[in-house]
Amino acid sequence: MNYKIAVIKGDGIGPEIVEASMKVLDKIGEKYNHTFDYTEVLAGGAAIDACDTPLPQKTVDICKASDAVLLGALGGPKWDNLPGDKRPEAGLLGIRKALGLFANLRPAMLFEELRDASPLKSEIIGDGLDVLVVRELTGDVYFGEKKKDGDFGASDLMNYTRPEVERIARVAFDSAKKRGGKVTSVDKANVLETSRFWRSVVLEIAKEYPDVELDHLYVDNAAMQLVINPHQFDVILTGNLFGDILSDEASMLTGSIGMLPSASLGEGKFGMYEPIHGSAPDIAGQDKANPIATVLSVAMMLRYSLGLSDEADNIEEAVKKTLAQGYRTGDIAGDNSNVVGCVEMGERIISSL
Amino acid sequence: MNYKIAVIKGDGIGPEIVEASMKVLDKIGEKYNHTFDYTEVLAGGAAIDACDTPLPQKTVDICKASDAVLLGALGGPKWDNLPGDKRPEAGLLGIRKALGLFANLRPAMLFEELRDASPLKSEIIGDGLDVLVVRELTGDVYFGEKKKDGDFGASDLMNYTRPEVERIARVAFDSAKKRGGKVTSVDKANVLETSRFWRSVVLEIAKEYPDVELDHLYVDNAAMQLVINPHQFDVILTGNLFGDILSDEASMLTGSIGMLPSASLGEGKFGMYEPIHGSAPDIAGQDKANPIATVLSVAMMLRYSLGLSDEADNIEEAVKKTLAQGYRTGDIAGDNSNVVGCVEMGERIISSL
Ligand SMILES: CC(C)[C@H](C(=O)O)[C@@H](O)C(=O)O
Ligand SMILES: CC(C)[C@H](C(=O)O)[C@@H](O)C(=O)O
Repeated sequence: MNYKIAVIKGDGIGPEIVEASMKVLDKIGEKYNHTFDYTEVLAGGAAIDACDTPLPQKTVDICKASDAVLLGALGGPKWDNLPGDKRPEAGLLGIRKALGLFANLRPAMLFEELRDASPLKSEIIGDGLDVLVVRELTGDVYFGEKKKDGDFGASDLMNYTRPEVERIARVAFDSAKKRGGKVTSVDKANVLETSRFWRSVVLEIAKEYPDVELDHLYVDNAAMQLVINPHQFDVILTGNLFGDILSDEASMLTGSIGMLPSASLGEGKFGMYEPIHGSAPDIAGQDKANPIATVLSVAMMLRYSLGLSDEADNIEEAVKKTLAQGYRTGDIAGDNSNVVGCVEMGERIISSL
Repeated sequence: MNYKIAVIKGDGIGPEIVEASMKVLDKIGEKYNHTFDYTEVLAGGAAIDACDTPLPQKTVDICKASDAVLLGALGGPKWDNLPGDKRPEAGLLGIRKALGLFANLRPAMLFEELRDASPLKSEIIGDGLDVLVVRELTGDVYFGEKKKDGDFGASDLMNYTRPEVERIARVAFDSAKKRGGKVTSVDKANVLETSRFWRSVVLEIAKEYPDVELDHLYVDNAAMQLVINPHQFDVILTGNLFGDILSDEASMLTGSIGMLPSASLGEGKFGMYEPIHGSAPDIAGQDKANPIATVLSVAMMLRYSLGLSDEADNIEEAVKKTLAQGYRTGDIAGDNSNVVGCVEMGERIISSL
């Protein structure tokens, strides 16, 4: 088969990690007899530099005409002083919205080999960590009306509508069915009208999933529970803002943040795939970056957008094998590691495919 | 001297922990020759039961006529199904607003004796944890206009005005001057107009404090940094919503959550003091609750509202001594602890004064 992939290499370490991951994907193509046609497009800092906007219309058009989008990482200090709507982040938010990618799936799992990198005590980690955060991605206070009242004040509207909550809730319940069978919906229903509404819709959708257990936590409590008892979670369902905070907290707790992929999905099979880490401008261009999160994002792309789960499994196995062989990039190196650069890490994974 | 203290015992374990703390305060009165005149008033669940509203006007009036307010904890499952504005939380939010308590100080510190209770690895704890979260308490999305659009959606307005940000920023900078000399302002300025405004005002106020170091973190990053590198923080300055989440996360990381007090302050010396933990209805009335967070809230009250710092020091020393003697309530008990109830813990502290 022939698949069209739009590629946004992005800023900082983006190009290196994406290039390493494309080589892995090419090898999968060879092995399983697929062709991946890449079209490179710009967003974020690179687009600001080249086109004076963080999200050229052309990028949106080409992404829409593709089967999936692979993204490195956007942003860096160079563009940090631009006004809000001209910054790299505006490109990221814009592309999520333009492509209708309302469901952000962020698995926070611990790689057993990197157990020591977790900030949590071993008793708390127990036999591992494995939480899937399902974050709504195109609504909430991120996209509500923004106002600036001169020098005097500013506001952002937090809001959710019924269809927005229904569809993300279904994604969470569907995911839970394939995993541990439990959804924890996180809100601040003791204070926010938006959250009370969110909770009422989640309760309704839950009726369609009698086999999935549902509970509700306030966001402040969820931030605590993640730290002392992460095993109570299977799927965390939450809005855009709380999801931003909790998914980062959960990832960091695994100690494996350089390893964690993410998927942003819309109504159909189309999706955008990217590592959860940032563009790390301090190590850009030095062949030091860890490509694994991006390689695993490619695996998610194969599974979710292209329906190629054997190929996805193959990549995930190859990553595990490479880690088991002791290869590590600097960010995840321990005392006895075999430290390699970004390029070599990619090659090691390829030879384990 | 004669001091007027309004007392809100509250729900669940509230009455027990407040009574134990009042005895400590009485002993301080004897020792240092002060009189504390208590007026008990209702809020939260107890007020709903007695007066059909979570915050009777009488409570507000008496609090306003007092030098300080001591609060136990509000809420419980009994009142969880009432509509938003009739719930115990509405009483808490209402009293903060009615009394103009815009500055919430939440010290998250680790008690060396309870080091083992922290979920973090010993390397990360290092020589202890001591972060002061300065949370804005009467603005933000908590108090912005709320709308419900029938069955179709709901919204809350997040907003901040210049005077609101200025005054809370000053509290943070003033606090930092008396501590480690560093403020970390937490926002989501890469997405929210409110946060960009917040950041610009904080930067202006910072000019009044050339000796205090200032940095800025996005809230998602702050949630991660707390977990892997808490020592980078001295004072965290943030809005109402982010402060709710981050202060709870920080407290939990210390492992000492049953021990942590808080102060909510307005423009003058008046303030409200309460433990950060909740009303723990499951153990209410069983003499099992830990009164220490409330006792330490009394110490904060003496220091901030009554200007009695020797007396405050005395209480804090007595708590340390009692812990050093091995006395623990169930929630903080270790293998070799001398487990005592709420009443006895209060008495042990009194005999260490
Ligand atoms: C860069 C920023 C706008 C973005 C977000 O808040 O969504 C990022 O933190 C993320 O989580 O992908
Ligand atoms: C009970 C709730 C309304 C309250 C808040 O969110 O402010 C609590 O979590 C707190 O932090 O004091």
